[in-house]
Amino acid sequence: MPDDRPTTAAQDSAGSLARAGDGAALARALFDSLRRLSFDGVGITRASYDAGEGAAHEFIAAEARKAGFAVARDRAANLVIELPGSEPGRPVVATGSHLDSVPQGGNFDGAAGVVAGFVALSRIKAAGITPRRTIRLYGIRGEESAWFGKAYLGSSALFGRLDPLDLERRHRDTGKPLATYMEAAGADIVAIASGEPLARAEDFAAFVEVHIEQGPVLVDRALPVGIVTGIRGYVRHLKIVCHGEAGHSGAIPRWLRHDSVLAVADVLMRLDEHWRVLMERGIDLVITSGIFTTDPSRHAMSRIPGEVEFSLEFRSLSLDTLETFHRLVQTECDVVAKTRGVRFEFDRRVFAVPERIGERWIEHLDALAKRLEIPTCRMPSGPGHDAAIFLGAGVPSAMIFIRNAHGSHNPREAMAIEDFMRGVDLLQAALLDPAA
Amino acid sequence: MPDDRPTTAAQDSAGSLARAGDGAALARALFDSLRRLSFDGVGITRASYDAGEGAAHEFIAAEARKAGFAVARDRAANLVIELPGSEPGRPVVATGSHLDSVPQGGNFDGAAGVVAGFVALSRIKAAGITPRRTIRLYGIRGEESAWFGKAYLGSSALFGRLDPLDLERRHRDTGKPLATYMEAAGADIVAIASGEPLARAEDFAAFVEVHIEQGPVLVDRALPVGIVTGIRGYVRHLKIVCHGEAGHSGAIPRWLRHDSVLAVADVLMRLDEHWRVLMERGIDLVITSGIFTTDPSRHAMSRIPGEVEFSLEFRSLSLDTLETFHRLVQTECDVVAKTRGVRFEFDRRVFAVPERIGERWIEHLDALAKRLEIPTCRMPSGPGHDAAIFLGAGVPSAMIFIRNAHGSHNPREAMAIEDFMRGVDLLQAALLDPAA
Repeated sequence: MPDDRPTTAAQDSAGSLARAGDGAALARALFDSLRRLSFDGVGITRASYDAGEGAAHEFIAAEARKAGFAVARDRAANLVIELPGSEPGRPVVATGSHLDSVPQGGNFDGAAGVVAGFVALSRIKAAGITPRRTIRLYGIRGEESAWFGKAYLGSSALFGRLDPLDLERRHRDTGKPLATYMEAAGADIVAIASGEPLARAEDFAAFVEVHIEQGPVLVDRALPVGIVTGIRGYVRHLKIVCHGEAGHSGAIPRWLRHDSVLAVADVLMRLDEHWRVLMERGIDLVITSGIFTTDPSRHAMSRIPGEVEFSLEFRSLSLDTLETFHRLVQTECDVVAKTRGVRFEFDRRVFAVPERIGERWIEHLDALAKRLEIPTCRMPSGPGHDAAIFLGAGVPSAMIFIRNAHGSHNPREAMAIEDFMRGVDLLQAALLDPAA
Repeated sequence: MPDDRPTTAAQDSAGSLARAGDGAALARALFDSLRRLSFDGVGITRASYDAGEGAAHEFIAAEARKAGFAVARDRAANLVIELPGSEPGRPVVATGSHLDSVPQGGNFDGAAGVVAGFVALSRIKAAGITPRRTIRLYGIRGEESAWFGKAYLGSSALFGRLDPLDLERRHRDTGKPLATYMEAAGADIVAIASGEPLARAEDFAAFVEVHIEQGPVLVDRALPVGIVTGIRGYVRHLKIVCHGEAGHSGAIPRWLRHDSVLAVADVLMRLDEHWRVLMERGIDLVITSGIFTTDPSRHAMSRIPGEVEFSLEFRSLSLDTLETFHRLVQTECDVVAKTRGVRFEFDRRVFAVPERIGERWIEHLDALAKRLEIPTCRMPSGPGHDAAIFLGAGVPSAMIFIRNAHGSHNPREAMAIEDFMRGVDLLQAALLDPAA
């Protein structure tokens, strides 16, 4: 069922639902309110460090206070909600996700992880359970790159990993720098600019993030929940230019052609065949050429295309695979350049390391899911997440995916509350009983 | 040597050079004057049925009168220059080409055929030779499609083969209809609109057109002159759309992808492989996908491309090859659609039949070239020419190509006068001694 069925729960105080521990009703109420707060006429807009994200933070903070939780803001302006444990000196078990969205995005991307934590904490509290470790729920700032051209701003700032130059990045609409926005949201901009870690890995026993799956795998496999094995790294070339030679399509025979479209098609088919073979060997990899264009100012049906621009991105859980495949790309381009008389010009590659989730956490979530009779599968995450920043900082982290149709970053996201609640069940078990 | 070396010949009366029979000097003078008449600051512009073409017609007509030829305009406003034969009742031997150009084009495309005819006639006259058949030189109107969106206007009108609807076609700059332009140039627009043939195939013993090669074959083979075996027909699809499914590049594994870029690359590589095999069997074919674009308003590096638009054109001297290859295109698209889960949407195909040059004429030109010790090869023409209209109307026709670098439809055309004169030698022999 979609989450937007008519509900009276939203009219109720979410706080009372939280106190009652009615998870599904609470989740619906929270999602409905978030949707109302940030509906833009088409989808959901919660701009990072801006009004939309701010309203979501205010709303969740207020509901958390009503539900009796300790609420604070950390020095990176992230929202922090805590359920104190019986041994408060010990590293905390953390959960959460981001509350911002892309323009005209969906209501669940990010918010599902915050709502999942909220529901889990509320049920633990309602059941009268006091966990050993303090459980901390984050509403993380600025995860989406849509607004300032860079992702994971809030979690990166938390671990002192935001490049000072990034503070100069301009908001896509207003042109004002990120620093101004962060400061207005209450962040300690001086500490962040200096690279001071505002939290240490040792403060955390774990970080477990719930997120909707942004692909079709769980829908295809008919499973409500996925256990994430890692976040794929990538190699990207935004612009590779293939230089051939233009000419009259009728007048130049095959052996005198330097056709850039056929050359790039040749490269892509060679890479596609490598991909197929690597998949058969169980090697994690995805390849995409999202941009492929002849020059609109010069191309024509009867003109042999002299130039093509294309992008190439490949992702993998394995650093080795990324490096090996990158060499393969260059080798195949060299071969095609020779055989077809063209030249490839590469821009600087953009690189992100893969972040693997520890085998202990994966096995632990497998075991908890089995005990709770939640059907799951293991799967990589293609898109990046705040959990990758926690992993990179040295925090033992895990991720739980919820089945979702139609991808993300669009208003057609479709997550059933029933699936969501199975994810919450798994999260709750993990928060109370984290991997050793 | 390029033709634009400093020359005093242009300052001389071309008429006196014509009378003297100095072919190379006459050719240089005529080309220089044509260039000066139609230089646009970048290249050559001689708009069809407009000022540029008109000036070229006036100039050639005036020079022909000075040289003592009979000059007239036919009912399609084509320029007609004649050297009367001793048996005037017999079908004429015709030559010529067009005098218009694309915007910012080169000086030789078209004009070379008129100048070649002019030089040949002048030398025959200067040598005091009276041919048996009247030799007729055409300055044909409106060959380039650049101005009214359709090619071969003057030759089509001549044979009553201009679609009346084409008379409504608008000039690319002024928006005025072709009919207005043709009428102003002196054409019998009523007869043309009615489809009345203004000339009959029986009036002609032959039509022999000299033209620069618009491809690199003669340069590559180091030959000054080519003997054309036919004008390739074509099948064109200006816009084929491949519909796949967009998605997050990181989140969708290979087996759930419907990647339109890879699908089209797959089709093109299959066609390229068929092309390679057909070439090895000696089958005439060229294939071009000149336009290939993901949607600029939606494509992105991290977005699996949901849609690609591409063009596809293939040309051949053989109607059978065109039809067979068209079926092959559809078969390969069907296979790829199934294996990659995409859909291809074809626009209506545009079709032009191949026009083969008769074996008699090809063999005759081979023999004449051998006698004159002109190195030649046989080759197809990719681009269309007025000769194809003469062929289509039933006139035994032939074509002679002159070596030319850098293609055509640009100011960088590079034809040496030495090569041109060898073409004129061959033309002259053919006009005096046409194939039986």
